[in-house]
Amino acid sequence: MKKNAVNIILTGVIVLLAAVLVGVLIFLKNQPPQERAVIQPISTVKPLEADSSLWGVNYPNEYSSLIQTANNNTATTYGGSAKKSYLLEDPRLVILFKGYAFSKDYNQPRGHQNALVDIRATKRVSATTHATCYSCKSSDNPGLWTQMGMEAYDAEMFTDMTPNINNPIGCANCHEAGSMRLVITNPAVEAAFQAQGIDWRTFTRQQMRSAVCANCHVTYYFAGDKKVLTVPWTKGMSVENIIADENKVNFADWTYPDAGTPIIKARHPDYELFTANSTHFKAGVSCADCHMPYIREGAMKFSSHDIMSPLLDPQRSCGQCHTDVNVVLSRASVIQDTVYQAKLGTEDALIDAITAIKAAAAKPGTDAVLLDSARSLHRTAQYMWDFISSANSMGFHNPDEFLRILRNATDLARQSQMKAAQAAGDPALLEVGVYDKMDPKPAPAP
Amino acid sequence: MKKNAVNIILTGVIVLLAAVLVGVLIFLKNQPPQERAVIQPISTVKPLEADSSLWGVNYPNEYSSLIQTANNNTATTYGGSAKKSYLLEDPRLVILFKGYAFSKDYNQPRGHQNALVDIRATKRVSATTHATCYSCKSSDNPGLWTQMGMEAYDAEMFTDMTPNINNPIGCANCHEAGSMRLVITNPAVEAAFQAQGIDWRTFTRQQMRSAVCANCHVTYYFAGDKKVLTVPWTKGMSVENIIADENKVNFADWTYPDAGTPIIKARHPDYELFTANSTHFKAGVSCADCHMPYIREGAMKFSSHDIMSPLLDPQRSCGQCHTDVNVVLSRASVIQDTVYQAKLGTEDALIDAITAIKAAAAKPGTDAVLLDSARSLHRTAQYMWDFISSANSMGFHNPDEFLRILRNATDLARQSQMKAAQAAGDPALLEVGVYDKMDPKPAPAP
Repeated sequence: MKKNAVNIILTGVIVLLAAVLVGVLIFLKNQPPQERAVIQPISTVKPLEADSSLWGVNYPNEYSSLIQTANNNTATTYGGSAKKSYLLEDPRLVILFKGYAFSKDYNQPRGHQNALVDIRATKRVSATTHATCYSCKSSDNPGLWTQMGMEAYDAEMFTDMTPNINNPIGCANCHEAGSMRLVITNPAVEAAFQAQGIDWRTFTRQQMRSAVCANCHVTYYFAGDKKVLTVPWTKGMSVENIIADENKVNFADWTYPDAGTPIIKARHPDYELFTANSTHFKAGVSCADCHMPYIREGAMKFSSHDIMSPLLDPQRSCGQCHTDVNVVLSRASVIQDTVYQAKLGTEDALIDAITAIKAAAAKPGTDAVLLDSARSLHRTAQYMWDFISSANSMGFHNPDEFLRILRNATDLARQSQMKAAQAAGDPALLEVGVYDKMDPKPAPAP
Repeated sequence: MKKNAVNIILTGVIVLLAAVLVGVLIFLKNQPPQERAVIQPISTVKPLEADSSLWGVNYPNEYSSLIQTANNNTATTYGGSAKKSYLLEDPRLVILFKGYAFSKDYNQPRGHQNALVDIRATKRVSATTHATCYSCKSSDNPGLWTQMGMEAYDAEMFTDMTPNINNPIGCANCHEAGSMRLVITNPAVEAAFQAQGIDWRTFTRQQMRSAVCANCHVTYYFAGDKKVLTVPWTKGMSVENIIADENKVNFADWTYPDAGTPIIKARHPDYELFTANSTHFKAGVSCADCHMPYIREGAMKFSSHDIMSPLLDPQRSCGQCHTDVNVVLSRASVIQDTVYQAKLGTEDALIDAITAIKAAAAKPGTDAVLLDSARSLHRTAQYMWDFISSANSMGFHNPDEFLRILRNATDLARQSQMKAAQAAGDPALLEVGVYDKMDPKPAPAP
């Protein structure tokens, strides 16, 4: 009987425990799903609104981080957003851009909020500069492009456009008012996608978190007398395809003094290089994942609009995916050191080539056909080098693509020098290491 | 009173639940820890035992996977372990190794079990070949080295050593009998670590899971008349440091015919390239993690000794860490395509340089000092290229280091060609793309 009593108590306990468990499970199952916090707009923002502070009423966190880009004057080893002169840092650039405004004034870009101040301050802008140079500097542009059309906008002079341009880069450059959808606003980029049969409207949100950066972070040229902003992607986005596209119209930004080479200036092909099968791109990472990491403030989670080098806040940027941030930093350092040295080596080869072409061009009896071959090789080599040199990240965006291109550029630069020596029939033109022997090193052009 | 009764019952239930919980926790805490399966040796293996089948009695899974390396004649796009002729695949190699046995016969290595068969079959071995060529081919070596000393071993002729060599690469090459500890058994590698002040006995097990591969997968040369196996790491393990080390003794494997350049042959510097700050190395990954992935068979988990390209079983190799194996494969493919093209481009530059040096050397009145400069540049460029070309993985082990070296090699090869043209005072020596114009392409030397 005693045993029976124990059994009854034990059975009771088990039944009780089971009942409690079932109750807890039913309770949990019936909880309503967590409501996703939906931001209720406080004010209505009109389409293409240029003034970011009006968008900021609805999105105070995003806006207040955006305006931090005015102050992030902080340097990393090779980049960041501090003001520094590329020409003073590496005087080889003074030689490579000789005869072009980039040899006068070429600074590291600062944060988005400084875009207008900086473009208006640069010595590269002159009385003959077209409004096209404002294309990537202002949130007034999407409205102006819609109103005027890009061709008419670009045909204006820079100084004539100035009164219309009151806001630095802001919300309207990447967002559709109301829906806040990410959008391509730059008509030249829209056209360049279209030329490849790509409709960005079919992109996923994650793809758009890189594609909106392509509104500006792509290479381009100013086509024709009206200086129409053109993104040269008709044949594809590799450096070889881009050169082929610009060769179609024999485009040149300037002719290199004395050498006579028609040169194309490359411009920050960050989207092209990142999407060229880079590790991060292939893994589905977007530009925003690293440059606009999520931040938690109180109950809010938002994407930082204080866009900067991930190296300035690696725990927040890299740490979203990588648990081993120190390993990532050490790899970034190796990659950047390697690419920087390879870039300098390529510059040395280019300077040797330019020196030889100039000497050949100056020499009576030089074979004109061979000299033109030397120039053509110089043009391609310099564009390839500049594609890397003008890109941000010092190789981190895609190390093997950066180094692949620099090897090709070096080879072509040396071939150019050889062709110049052949043209002049003069082996004395084969001098190597011309830059190292320069004393003093060149200073920025006045 | 009724309320009191309810309270008493509730309190009872809570106390009961708490007691059950505490009981469960105590029960769990007092469970003995899971015993790690310890393998009880069935038979005693004597120190340095050359016959892997005797070790296999105790380690049947490892042994039975090791002997699979006899059969893994499978190809990947650029590697694997199928028999193929590098010379037929890329006839540029016939030119680059002209005058040396590698221009006769140079095949992709097969699995470890084939090492002996393949070294005995190659046309590179002749009556004057030293026993040193057996160094990385047999598990008899650790015993023979201990018994004879490496110098005496290497002083023997290959054919005289043959009767002592009965087993292909096996257990004794990497393991200490009894303890099964991973060990450096190659005295040349031991010395090369020592020369850098590195004591491999302080390595962690994970470091040893790469270091034992260095028993063979390192570059080397045969020093002096006794052809003593020497790993040139006294200055460090970068390609520049290795060249400096071999330059100290003016080492040359052969003199390039007609050009007169004293050339060093690089040999599969896999350990050097992988440990040069590669992504995987920095992340703490070892060679064995990818090439000897863990396998579960029944209750046993063991490291596969069927060492092969991870591309042949990516789910098992890459999938140990990566959930996105297809992304990894697609990146591997991009890296290997990029490095392969860069390697071919570098070869073209080298062939142009060799052609120019030969022409300069044949021309009366050529400046001897400049010609020697051209040869010196050729020597360095060719070694750098070969460091990459002879390494396994077609760049995957360390893409940026492979591409960094190929850019430097290209630059130096072109500089060599220019110097040769200067030496001969003849711009006609600046021809580019000599290989492309060859018809027919060269065939392996008889």
